[in-house]
Amino acid sequence: MGENDDSEIIEHHVEEEMEKKGTRSHAASSSSFPESVTPSDREGHSGTQSSHRLLAYSDALISIIATVMILPVAHTKMEDNEELRESVQLLLTTKIAVYLMTFLIVTVAWAAHIRLFQVIVRIDDCLALLNLACMMLITFLPYTFSLMATFPTNLLGILLFCGCVMVMGVIQSVIVLYAFSRPFLLNEQIQISENQTFYKHHILKVIMRVPLMCMFASIFSLIFLQLSYVLLAIVIFLPYISQSLKWCRSKAIGQVEETPDSMLFYTYLPNEPLSKDRVEAFSDGVYAIVATLLILDICEDNVPDPIVVQKQFGGSLIAALQVYGPEYLAYFGSFVTVGLLWFVHHSLFLHVTKATRFMGLLNTFSLAFVGGLPLAYQLTHEFPHNSRNELEAIQISCVIIFFAGIFQLAIWVVALYNEHETLHPYVRYGGREHVFMLAKLALYPCVALGTFFLTCILSKFSAQIFHLMEITVPFAFLVLRLLVRVGLALLRLIFCPDRPDPRSIVEEEDETRVPFNALVT
Amino acid sequence: MGENDDSEIIEHHVEEEMEKKGTRSHAASSSSFPESVTPSDREGHSGTQSSHRLLAYSDALISIIATVMILPVAHTKMEDNEELRESVQLLLTTKIAVYLMTFLIVTVAWAAHIRLFQVIVRIDDCLALLNLACMMLITFLPYTFSLMATFPTNLLGILLFCGCVMVMGVIQSVIVLYAFSRPFLLNEQIQISENQTFYKHHILKVIMRVPLMCMFASIFSLIFLQLSYVLLAIVIFLPYISQSLKWCRSKAIGQVEETPDSMLFYTYLPNEPLSKDRVEAFSDGVYAIVATLLILDICEDNVPDPIVVQKQFGGSLIAALQVYGPEYLAYFGSFVTVGLLWFVHHSLFLHVTKATRFMGLLNTFSLAFVGGLPLAYQLTHEFPHNSRNELEAIQISCVIIFFAGIFQLAIWVVALYNEHETLHPYVRYGGREHVFMLAKLALYPCVALGTFFLTCILSKFSAQIFHLMEITVPFAFLVLRLLVRVGLALLRLIFCPDRPDPRSIVEEEDETRVPFNALVT
Repeated sequence: MGENDDSEIIEHHVEEEMEKKGTRSHAASSSSFPESVTPSDREGHSGTQSSHRLLAYSDALISIIATVMILPVAHTKMEDNEELRESVQLLLTTKIAVYLMTFLIVTVAWAAHIRLFQVIVRIDDCLALLNLACMMLITFLPYTFSLMATFPTNLLGILLFCGCVMVMGVIQSVIVLYAFSRPFLLNEQIQISENQTFYKHHILKVIMRVPLMCMFASIFSLIFLQLSYVLLAIVIFLPYISQSLKWCRSKAIGQVEETPDSMLFYTYLPNEPLSKDRVEAFSDGVYAIVATLLILDICEDNVPDPIVVQKQFGGSLIAALQVYGPEYLAYFGSFVTVGLLWFVHHSLFLHVTKATRFMGLLNTFSLAFVGGLPLAYQLTHEFPHNSRNELEAIQISCVIIFFAGIFQLAIWVVALYNEHETLHPYVRYGGREHVFMLAKLALYPCVALGTFFLTCILSKFSAQIFHLMEITVPFAFLVLRLLVRVGLALLRLIFCPDRPDPRSIVEEEDETRVPFNALVT
Repeated sequence: MGENDDSEIIEHHVEEEMEKKGTRSHAASSSSFPESVTPSDREGHSGTQSSHRLLAYSDALISIIATVMILPVAHTKMEDNEELRESVQLLLTTKIAVYLMTFLIVTVAWAAHIRLFQVIVRIDDCLALLNLACMMLITFLPYTFSLMATFPTNLLGILLFCGCVMVMGVIQSVIVLYAFSRPFLLNEQIQISENQTFYKHHILKVIMRVPLMCMFASIFSLIFLQLSYVLLAIVIFLPYISQSLKWCRSKAIGQVEETPDSMLFYTYLPNEPLSKDRVEAFSDGVYAIVATLLILDICEDNVPDPIVVQKQFGGSLIAALQVYGPEYLAYFGSFVTVGLLWFVHHSLFLHVTKATRFMGLLNTFSLAFVGGLPLAYQLTHEFPHNSRNELEAIQISCVIIFFAGIFQLAIWVVALYNEHETLHPYVRYGGREHVFMLAKLALYPCVALGTFFLTCILSKFSAQIFHLMEITVPFAFLVLRLLVRVGLALLRLIFCPDRPDPRSIVEEEDETRVPFNALVT
């Protein structure tokens, strides 16, 4: 009785999750439940829960923390009399570097978190609380990092950083030990496997590697500080670099290594699967924070003081608000650009069936550039018209948009290399939506590149060109499907002039579809 | 061929969603797919997508915007020589009121958004872009609101607000018209219904009511400003209030009204279903932002200047950082409290099977108090020890924690009133986890209340009591299950002394289980 009872709660939660997915899955959830609950689930234990929401909350926290260091960059006051070039160089050397490094390190911690919860698929109260403790330490990492950057010769920053990493390692080990002592919390693959102990030791070994090296680095820092930074950098990125190199070599030579059973998890291979769900949740968080960064500032700083309005503007609120005009423009511009980049990301991941570690890395790079967008947009409106500073700010914005977009395109290109595993047939090479997806992904990089070169040539009209770009792009996305069809029809008209059918635009869709289906099925 | 093709992409996405839910659903997704795709889905159309991620992104944006106005409150500098009472009263009258009103209005907009996307369950590119435009207008609402609060006698604030609402109304109407022109995007219930036109008109009528009234309010504001504020307040909250009153009356009299077919959506009834998924996503967003609010400030403001460290602290970074000690404490305290409140929320919603509008409202109140937590915690550490200010800051923190917790408890109590629809059997009255859930939900309110009264009596040790509370609560959550069992065993020992079995604690679980199962099944 008790056992059946327990499996009931699990079934209930699974059902609930499926119900979330809308009405379509109702039939599935009601008809096939008994089969979907594995014997190990049936054993059940009171208080186990799906980890879905815990991971969503963790992703939200981590995405905020990853982007937090852009705030000091954005709030650096630009002096009007100073040349932008110099101040940007000053920023580049410290604050932007801190931002990018923080972003990278937090995403490394995030990747470790994903890896851990790909092994542990169910949680209970104790694991949820341990995970919260882990999260708190992750949120503290950016601060230790900015201490390191501000006081590079002081021990404290590196000791705090190593301390955080070590405590996180201990907590993660406790989580692993706890989960392995309650196997019903684990991934099914490990649950049914016979050498659970082997898995446990392998995972613990991988998890403890970084904290142990951090301990050495912190001891080492007492003797020779500079080298311990190098040690840290190696510790954190070595597994990725070495495995990537190994993977590249094996690809180049063509020799496919047989991965042993133990290497299913924690392989650090570029094609190790990465939970697509979590990549999306993390990206959504970053896009949402970045899109609203400027409105946070506007809400806080750009409400004029009633006394000032009375004295300086003769009580005219509109006149007082006109001073802030550029900031509103920057907000709308950055919101629209970030929103559309999210839209492209959304369209791409809709057709991704499996995310890999390498795709996750490219996604991280894209997001890191997205984080810089509000700052760049703010700069474009801060300087007097036709000044050298304005031109440079506009060009920097174009460069940032270009890289944010090109890394999104790169995700797709990488996915295409292994398209049968990672992509839906429709966007594979030759698929029905292939050209349309290419157009979507290429739109922003192309436009940014075009604007960049146009502003180089017509530097006098740079602001006008930039604003025109901002306004045109959303409409371009709206009519993109049409544009692609017209473009394809024109191409066909030029290269296959033997069949100049005027209805080809309409038939286009059906024409391109047939051969690809043959390929796919 | 073309039609089959299209249904394939839909099937693929459904499958993908289920795969996300982990390995357990594999069997379900592979075995029962053909049944789960409805005839209308089979018709299919190129480019339709599940709305899941669009809604997640919208929720993330809205949760950030809802909490944005706490920043001006948090950044108000407290003067040490000034009495806290006065400065708090000053805050209460303006900034806190703006924060609470913003929170309420944004959540009203969010509820409208939920309602809309409970009718439209699939999206395409065009709808995604229209939704982004709608989001941008929502993110602008807090600013118009703070303009209204700062310049209550100026027209501009109210005109901007009404303008935003009107444009949002137009966009939402366009979305509805667009979706009804492509019925495969709609909720299945409407899709199969014969009077789609009736639905369309009903929904449009409800959507356009608020923008139309806003138009009147803005015209009215040109004549008599103060009354147009009242008009606005009525417009926004009237449907909720009137329907709630109607519902309460019908509950009191016991007369159950038959809701006509048209009233399935957009009823404003307190028991109208609210997407549980989205309530969770929105809450996660708010908890995540609030938990990290203080670290954002710390990362930006609390990195000391190297020159200052050299001059004032003789190069000792540790001495310089000790100045910020209270801020770190406040950060850890608020992170832990927010994290644990999230944990309680998570545990509760794990057992909620259907969320209603009234539960959503209570959740909003709880979240609004959670948003004030970092500010309160910051205050507790900002004043000298044993000052009157410190005592009041601690008591305010207790009050905020109390209300945040008590509204969570209220969600459960409301759910219990209709437990067969809204709750999992385990946490219903008499269910196995009923007492444990009660303990979880009651822990924070009780502790906050206890701390409040203790600090009233032992005002000299208020700081110590508060810190002790901060440290004890996480451990209390860890051993709560044990505590509840011991408590139950003790109660049984006292009230049923005829069976003083020493093993009762161990058997407790089985003993309590049996009678409830009889109830449940």
